[in-house]
Amino acid sequence: MSESVAILGDGQMALVMADALAYRGLAVRIWGPVAADALELARTRRSPRLDGFQLPESVQVTAEDRAAFDGAGMIISAIPTQYLRSVWQRLRRQVPPRACIISVTKGIEIGTSMRPTQVIADVLATVQTSKRPNVQTGDASRAVSARCAPGGQDVPNPPLVALSGPSIAAELARRLPASLVAASADAGCARLAQDLLHVPWLRVYRHDDVIGVEMAGATKNVIALAAGMIDGLQAGDNAKSALLARGLAEIARLGVALGAKLDTFFGIAGVGDLATTCFSPVGRNRTCGERLARGEPLDSILSSMSSVVEGVPTTRAVLAMARAHHVDMPITAAVHAILFEGLTPREAIRDLMGRELKAEQVG
Amino acid sequence: MSESVAILGDGQMALVMADALAYRGLAVRIWGPVAADALELARTRRSPRLDGFQLPESVQVTAEDRAAFDGAGMIISAIPTQYLRSVWQRLRRQVPPRACIISVTKGIEIGTSMRPTQVIADVLATVQTSKRPNVQTGDASRAVSARCAPGGQDVPNPPLVALSGPSIAAELARRLPASLVAASADAGCARLAQDLLHVPWLRVYRHDDVIGVEMAGATKNVIALAAGMIDGLQAGDNAKSALLARGLAEIARLGVALGAKLDTFFGIAGVGDLATTCFSPVGRNRTCGERLARGEPLDSILSSMSSVVEGVPTTRAVLAMARAHHVDMPITAAVHAILFEGLTPREAIRDLMGRELKAEQVG
Repeated sequence: MSESVAILGDGQMALVMADALAYRGLAVRIWGPVAADALELARTRRSPRLDGFQLPESVQVTAEDRAAFDGAGMIISAIPTQYLRSVWQRLRRQVPPRACIISVTKGIEIGTSMRPTQVIADVLATVQTSKRPNVQTGDASRAVSARCAPGGQDVPNPPLVALSGPSIAAELARRLPASLVAASADAGCARLAQDLLHVPWLRVYRHDDVIGVEMAGATKNVIALAAGMIDGLQAGDNAKSALLARGLAEIARLGVALGAKLDTFFGIAGVGDLATTCFSPVGRNRTCGERLARGEPLDSILSSMSSVVEGVPTTRAVLAMARAHHVDMPITAAVHAILFEGLTPREAIRDLMGRELKAEQVG
Repeated sequence: MSESVAILGDGQMALVMADALAYRGLAVRIWGPVAADALELARTRRSPRLDGFQLPESVQVTAEDRAAFDGAGMIISAIPTQYLRSVWQRLRRQVPPRACIISVTKGIEIGTSMRPTQVIADVLATVQTSKRPNVQTGDASRAVSARCAPGGQDVPNPPLVALSGPSIAAELARRLPASLVAASADAGCARLAQDLLHVPWLRVYRHDDVIGVEMAGATKNVIALAAGMIDGLQAGDNAKSALLARGLAEIARLGVALGAKLDTFFGIAGVGDLATTCFSPVGRNRTCGERLARGEPLDSILSSMSSVVEGVPTTRAVLAMARAHHVDMPITAAVHAILFEGLTPREAIRDLMGRELKAEQVG
């Protein structure tokens, strides 16, 4: 294969995606938003964000906006949610027409309550098609493009795919087996993501519920913060698993209120991702929750971590959405109160355990 | 309170239930099927099956069949599935009329494919009501009985409750917080279980889907064996979480085919119990799977463990049910092939990862 893939971002997910695509023999280019970091990655093939990982030699790294896409037939967007809009605004005029855009970001934009693919679509919708450069695409990426939007010339909003699932980067970096879900309204583009990421350690399922897959991927980070707090309080796996079940119920309620399918929350991108995020010792959100429960202030935790803890801003965004849609989310509300309102994790657990006894309701 | 509760069995769950009920000030009596073990427990207040646990002094222990119930208003049945029928047959003529029976057993009887509450009901249905002794019930248990089956005299099949949820005994023994589900067609009896187990570390939800709660409790042990194998192969939490999601989908499919509600599998007794069983390091089924994947023969693992590994016989029973109801259960089939047909865990994972790429389906 010789398809060309552009990866936006040089964080954990960008690196492990580059590794898989390079293994497939694809021409891969990583674009990093901060020039110094990108140059360092290009030189050392290593990143302080992913211990022990070595970037394959075939992967190019650039910090130049004009070189970000270079006629790529597939773009992987791996930018943290709260920087997503500014990065795409910066690069929007370079985006090759007809390219499939695969988003691996998990979060909700504060203020707009938009999902990552919505933010990208929103930015690209403001680009006048006439102002887009007529990017010359090579044979390989033309082949890719034809499968995404056959016959299209200048497509203002390229087809978008949300790629999600249980994907702790430290494990993907070691090429341990994982399953992912590629959700898109464009079945051809979902199939392309499935095909290009078909390496021995990845199994990609297609899906059509973009709302559900993205909402599950964003909201699970909130529940993971709570799971980490249970670890920090040494309350045990029974409590953490009950939290997982009740957390799943409340994030599914919100998803359904927004138009997602309930089933999505009980699949790989839902409960699968939630489980790994709540239980993997290396998960960033879980770790942040654990340190909070041990008494460390949020600011000091965040400033000590080399990667963004998506669950923290996402908690604000999710609670706002829950209120706007009148969805009861007691765990999210408790996490919000702990992060931003001074409640302690111990008080929160006592409150949750002490709620009125009742019949269980799911969904 | 002064209600009297009889607990059948002296295994892990019997012990932690006794602890909670004694904490509530109830008169609790444990009946053990093996006299020597029961006497040792009565004397030492400790059990080789639950390290560090100390049985409260107020809990009585007996090995005498005639003293098993002694007019109890509530009976907790905590006998491993494959011994359940013989124990209830042995004691069936002693069962006080109108007592609520709470089953905490998680499994399926081989041969009959019956759930634990079905086995108990089946045994009790063979008892002629006229042959049951007219057990004298005290004030307290009369109060209990009145709430279970008001006005009843001799009820051939007492009301049954399936009590389930994420409940690793080693954690309950330390009184770490946990949530359980009490499922019954008899709402009064479910409410009684909820009331009597209302201690600071337990939160009991009522439920009406007995089939779903029992099927989830049985089948999750099969998935936990597979989860342990992933641990034994050091394949990581991404793989284990994907297995959890795909395992949940297949056990839910079987449950629904048997008349369970899909939602039950996504609640505390479903995904909650599945998560703790797959992730808690001390879970017996997970541990058994881990040792299998490291190359230890099944016989040697089972003979070294002080408690029954329910998942092993349950795998046979579940696969038989799946075939009878034409439900596709690839993970259960793989576990069966590993346990009884000589497949290795590594071969099984390769087979599961190599299945045809497709769209994800839940339920």
